[in-house]
Amino acid sequence: MAILFTNVTAALMDQAGTILTGGYVQVDGSTITYVGAHRPQGDFDRVVDCTGKVMLPGLINAHTHLPMTLMRGYGGGCDLQTWLHDYIFPAEGKLDAQAVAAGTGLGLAEMIASGVTCVADMYMFTSTIAQEILKAGISANLSCGGVYFGDPADFDPNTCGDCIAQRELTDAWHGAGDGQILMDASIHGEYTSSAPLWQWMAQFAHDHHQRMHVHVSETVSEHQACLTRHGMTPIQTLNQYGVWDNGGIAAHCVYTTPEDWAIMAGKGVSCVHNPYSNLKLGSGVAPIPDMLKAGVNVALGTDGMSSHNSADLFADVKLAALLHSGVRCTPGAVSPRQALEMATVAGAEALGRPTGQIVAGKVADLILVDFTAPNLTPCHDVVENLVFAAHGSNVVMNMARGKIIYENGTFYTLDLEKIQAQVKEYALPLLFG
Amino acid sequence: MAILFTNVTAALMDQAGTILTGGYVQVDGSTITYVGAHRPQGDFDRVVDCTGKVMLPGLINAHTHLPMTLMRGYGGGCDLQTWLHDYIFPAEGKLDAQAVAAGTGLGLAEMIASGVTCVADMYMFTSTIAQEILKAGISANLSCGGVYFGDPADFDPNTCGDCIAQRELTDAWHGAGDGQILMDASIHGEYTSSAPLWQWMAQFAHDHHQRMHVHVSETVSEHQACLTRHGMTPIQTLNQYGVWDNGGIAAHCVYTTPEDWAIMAGKGVSCVHNPYSNLKLGSGVAPIPDMLKAGVNVALGTDGMSSHNSADLFADVKLAALLHSGVRCTPGAVSPRQALEMATVAGAEALGRPTGQIVAGKVADLILVDFTAPNLTPCHDVVENLVFAAHGSNVVMNMARGKIIYENGTFYTLDLEKIQAQVKEYALPLLFG
Repeated sequence: MAILFTNVTAALMDQAGTILTGGYVQVDGSTITYVGAHRPQGDFDRVVDCTGKVMLPGLINAHTHLPMTLMRGYGGGCDLQTWLHDYIFPAEGKLDAQAVAAGTGLGLAEMIASGVTCVADMYMFTSTIAQEILKAGISANLSCGGVYFGDPADFDPNTCGDCIAQRELTDAWHGAGDGQILMDASIHGEYTSSAPLWQWMAQFAHDHHQRMHVHVSETVSEHQACLTRHGMTPIQTLNQYGVWDNGGIAAHCVYTTPEDWAIMAGKGVSCVHNPYSNLKLGSGVAPIPDMLKAGVNVALGTDGMSSHNSADLFADVKLAALLHSGVRCTPGAVSPRQALEMATVAGAEALGRPTGQIVAGKVADLILVDFTAPNLTPCHDVVENLVFAAHGSNVVMNMARGKIIYENGTFYTLDLEKIQAQVKEYALPLLFG
Repeated sequence: MAILFTNVTAALMDQAGTILTGGYVQVDGSTITYVGAHRPQGDFDRVVDCTGKVMLPGLINAHTHLPMTLMRGYGGGCDLQTWLHDYIFPAEGKLDAQAVAAGTGLGLAEMIASGVTCVADMYMFTSTIAQEILKAGISANLSCGGVYFGDPADFDPNTCGDCIAQRELTDAWHGAGDGQILMDASIHGEYTSSAPLWQWMAQFAHDHHQRMHVHVSETVSEHQACLTRHGMTPIQTLNQYGVWDNGGIAAHCVYTTPEDWAIMAGKGVSCVHNPYSNLKLGSGVAPIPDMLKAGVNVALGTDGMSSHNSADLFADVKLAALLHSGVRCTPGAVSPRQALEMATVAGAEALGRPTGQIVAGKVADLILVDFTAPNLTPCHDVVENLVFAAHGSNVVMNMARGKIIYENGTFYTLDLEKIQAQVKEYALPLLFG
């Protein structure tokens, strides 16, 4: 399948910060094969005229929990402990694969329609999530959130559920769909697991070329408790066990320190900034401008829909670009370009994937944004409009891995009606009925 | 014209916090005449089935500058002074009525499509704005931002441009369209005007039953300069001249004090919170939870599109509900309901208008939000979904003053194509060509 995009205006998200105008983008199979000013020769299965639209690499949601879309708005208004113990945990306890599939499909529909082509997800029923991802067509780094909390003496990797899951999921899914799915090694968080698992998971990641996905320093209480327990921060504690040696994702990082950032920058560990979730749960504001200055790669995530309630990553890009200016009284503390990088090229770096840029050789994850919409008129600056004015609803095409999976309101890989029926008739009664 | 809405689920925004389900809302002329569980008798010109939708009072954007939509994203990335002096002021200097009409129309299109039925606007070419508002069908409090900065000795209300404008605009527009347009008395800000104008404008407001619209304590430098000049805050300084005696709008209030709040609560002066604009310009975070506790009425605004870039007030509601939780590490510092009130009933209070609630006797400003959209599925709580998950693009109907002016993507009172052509072919070349 060869597709040619013509009359392309695009934010390539390359190092030079190029805005292509009146150009061409060629896709062969799942790969971008040409980006430039001249019309490539050849026969194309489809030619897409991009007049009035702006092309952007597909957005990367680098920290989420897809099935929690079922819990959007559930237990809102409670304090964190009541919310978790009286609402979220009981609902999660009733989940089965069919409900997880429905919730995942619902989350994917929302994300695909608003321009996401790649996610890093951490949740139970990981195989079910993998199946839904394969069908939907986007790329995903998956993990299941290891939570072994016992003593070293009791730890047996042959019987530890986290280890069994990591091995089985890796066998079944790591690299599936020609790299569409990658398994990340996974520790839920320092506060929910213990040293034997950290050590085992670090070794597993090393042996299987996997990256790590961990919740880190999300709340002040979690961060302080780790200092009390271990005399150092979660980043530093986990680092003692080799957890970061293969790089990966540290989600949240609200209370991380300059020493943490040096470790992260040195080991290729990305921060995933979740600004909406951190605000909603009252966690605080992550020191993103300082982390960027310290050379940490910063990606962007929505977190689960139970602590954000919307998967429109364009809103997170805007918030990431504005929040730090505001709370520091420093306009441009994070630049619009830096915010857009978080959701594209930096997200790709965080997930260890050759995407996030419109550059020949990269995976063809591409979206088109309708710049004729009133909210994107006029356009004095493409990046300024993408970051501050665009909404997910302005996305009119989503191409993931070279296939157009969404166009002008129509899903080509998802049956939205069926998903919504499954949510309504099966999943919601099961969890909340 | 009588319209009946059936199968209504609605957040009435009444004092009891009622969520109507399976109900009926009747509109006669421009007024809501029935809200309740029983189908009213009578013949209706139109019956609207609201199954799958949620009704909300039309949103109120209580501080904006509509024509600045032309400058969306213009000069982004500059510091404030460069931005103002090298970009905004030169562009504004070239404006004419035709360009203002185009920019106003563009801003109105974006607002109407995302559920706004009422605005408070402050800008030049106020008569032109009034004409566009009348055509569009929404309600507006208009003001022109008085900036007389001279000595008392030089002040002559017969020749002062601000006084002439206020008189002429009041004669022409105050109460026009059966109250669709109200003129506010107007002082741009303490730092851009002086005592003779304050005194005159206060008297004029008193004589003509007008409310006041002023920028207040938006930046720390403006606030501090006033303390140096007058030994008290802008709220207190203006209060000395009777500016607040008739109530009105104090936009921003980022650096206001408990003493200011006591004056505001006592005199019926509303704070208009502009969270996105305050973040973008690095102004800071207004002490909204404290103002609410002090009994100040808090409304919500986008400010102009040059310092926000999007008129989707749903995003501002979400930010208002989350920002304070996050920066104070206090979940629920502003509750979802309080945030929704800012954009509805509190906005109505700020503008002195009988709207913002779905209650018999109020003006029929009503919107319908499509709750079958993936991003609003599931719905565990109507308010939680409206505040945290809804986007302006979920609005499928906008009724302003009893007339449906927008429905499923179609504008009934605006010619969007013509507006966009005017913007592109006339206004942009004039300002930036």
